[in-house]
Amino acid sequence: MPSPFFVTAQQFDFAGPLPLRGGAQLRDYSLAVETYGTLNAARSNAVLVCHALNASHHVAGVYAGEPDNLGWWDNLVGPGKPLDTEKFFVIGVNNLGSCFGSTGPQSVNPDTGKPYGADFPVITVEDWVDAQAVLADRLGISRFAAVIGGSLGGMQALAWSIRYPKRLANCIVIASTPRLSAQNIAFNDVARQAILTDPEFHGGHYYEHGVVPRRGLRVARMIGHITYLSDDDMAEKFGRSLRADDLQYGYGAEFEIESYLRYQGDKFSEYFDANTYLLITKALDYFDPAREHDGRLERALAHTEANYLVASFTTDWRFAPARSREIVRALLDSKKRVSYAEIDAPHGHDAFLLDDPRYHTLLHTWFEQIHREVQA
Amino acid sequence: MPSPFFVTAQQFDFAGPLPLRGGAQLRDYSLAVETYGTLNAARSNAVLVCHALNASHHVAGVYAGEPDNLGWWDNLVGPGKPLDTEKFFVIGVNNLGSCFGSTGPQSVNPDTGKPYGADFPVITVEDWVDAQAVLADRLGISRFAAVIGGSLGGMQALAWSIRYPKRLANCIVIASTPRLSAQNIAFNDVARQAILTDPEFHGGHYYEHGVVPRRGLRVARMIGHITYLSDDDMAEKFGRSLRADDLQYGYGAEFEIESYLRYQGDKFSEYFDANTYLLITKALDYFDPAREHDGRLERALAHTEANYLVASFTTDWRFAPARSREIVRALLDSKKRVSYAEIDAPHGHDAFLLDDPRYHTLLHTWFEQIHREVQA
Repeated sequence: MPSPFFVTAQQFDFAGPLPLRGGAQLRDYSLAVETYGTLNAARSNAVLVCHALNASHHVAGVYAGEPDNLGWWDNLVGPGKPLDTEKFFVIGVNNLGSCFGSTGPQSVNPDTGKPYGADFPVITVEDWVDAQAVLADRLGISRFAAVIGGSLGGMQALAWSIRYPKRLANCIVIASTPRLSAQNIAFNDVARQAILTDPEFHGGHYYEHGVVPRRGLRVARMIGHITYLSDDDMAEKFGRSLRADDLQYGYGAEFEIESYLRYQGDKFSEYFDANTYLLITKALDYFDPAREHDGRLERALAHTEANYLVASFTTDWRFAPARSREIVRALLDSKKRVSYAEIDAPHGHDAFLLDDPRYHTLLHTWFEQIHREVQA
Repeated sequence: MPSPFFVTAQQFDFAGPLPLRGGAQLRDYSLAVETYGTLNAARSNAVLVCHALNASHHVAGVYAGEPDNLGWWDNLVGPGKPLDTEKFFVIGVNNLGSCFGSTGPQSVNPDTGKPYGADFPVITVEDWVDAQAVLADRLGISRFAAVIGGSLGGMQALAWSIRYPKRLANCIVIASTPRLSAQNIAFNDVARQAILTDPEFHGGHYYEHGVVPRRGLRVARMIGHITYLSDDDMAEKFGRSLRADDLQYGYGAEFEIESYLRYQGDKFSEYFDANTYLLITKALDYFDPAREHDGRLERALAHTEANYLVASFTTDWRFAPARSREIVRALLDSKKRVSYAEIDAPHGHDAFLLDDPRYHTLLHTWFEQIHREVQA
């Protein structure tokens, strides 16, 4: 196990306005960013990593003095890793509306001098991509060697290829979907309802009340967490194991799975922002590039120019392989270059964050090929 | 469509003690009961219908003056229906701990003169079956022609066959499972956490505070409801349909599925008791007849004498067909008589409540055969 490398976060400030799909605009905004590796002279080796619901710009490495705070995709990104920072200039950016340093509901609204709270505008995947494109301009990157993401990050990669077809050579979409199903939206809405009906939510202005809708956020995370794991994996890891020797006939954490989920919910509710949770789940619900093309995804993809890699995991029931195949089918129908891998992995949706050897070999090989293209 | 028949509920009072698996006992208790049809002279045509989470003794028909309050399995039970009340004496009983007339958390604790609330003891499937057996004694029924149930009701039927092998000729277990999976328990626990952390829960003594933990109960029901429907059925019924013409970019009920689920949650939270919800989900979690036999279900079933019908539905992901097959396999391994039907139906777990023709034909045929046995 190589020792982690040290990284520092940067803040980039932008004078807007950034027009948003929902009709609002952000006057001024900041993005929290990390970069790893070195941009080559031709500025052709940049890779953008897009994050999912609860992650951030802290993709890899550790901060000095925080040895346990490892980047969320550190197993993939770093020196000698599949996305090799000795070859690529890798960029992580915290999405607008998130709670890890980019402008979001906790930021001060320049129009009022108070935190945005619930007044922070609803953000879409396309808005994130637009903000990332402005960041790329600032960094002097006109074209990415690749844009990559898993889950909601995969939606951003897909949206990049549609909105800025000339600005990425490769588009890597992992464990994602071209649009949420009714069931996906249902899970998101129950999570939102848990937050919205928490008496400490205060219409989203809980910062002013000095409280946090922790109970709602905790339940929301527990619901989400169930959908990230496969049924089999949960059975394997927890089964019906009890914490004590025998049944307790009460409402404490009696089965191991209860203890695990409650712990995950507690932890999450201490560091994540409830308004951000609402906002990001809505971005998930809204994503549907085919919507403006009579539901025909192949039309939404007609003008793309990237070389696509689409990957899914067999036990992912949140965004099942069939959802990835919809993307592949639409790309094939519009005669695009696409490779597809359906990886037999037991860990459900979370598999995209884990270092399954077949999965990492796939990405390693793919990035080796991209590196050859960059050097050519 | 024949007009519904009129029914009346009865209350049966029992002087306990009824010892419970959790160690407590109920000193006095009442059961709310409905019966349909006539017990024959040989007392051999009785069928016990066991209910699932939110149902009751009101299995079929309507009460005078309440034409819309149709019994929950009225499509199956009644004159000329698959479980024909012109041939069978059918009994519906509200389970202990429920909130529709049998003794439960809302009842007055004889030891304190106040409602039990959270002090109502945790109840198991086996406790319900024991109370149903006491009721059968009272009704003079020493042996049922059949015990039938779906989901949690199927667990009761299975437990009947194990606990009282000589007291039922047929055991009909529909859309059920021999034990909850970790994922099943996880969904139940998130629902419980939503209730337990509702500030209006007051440790289960909300009756005294004149409030109801409606928010928690609403979220709990929304979570449950998602697991009752199939992904495909939800896609078919709701898809990504919007309530308005265009996206709203807010947190109102925007997609039809959101509106539907919120409505279901609202409605449920108005009539169901939160303590009962907690209690029944725990009964689900605890059910595991193989537990006392080193996890070997065939051993738990070794002394059963019933003729079994096990049925499952292809799109049920709450208690998938594989779970029913575990029961069938264990019955075959212990050389019991069992028929198994895996019914291709689109409606997920809820299918057991609907009148799919193949499903109802199966039950019709099965009860015809039981009727012939009863007459023989």
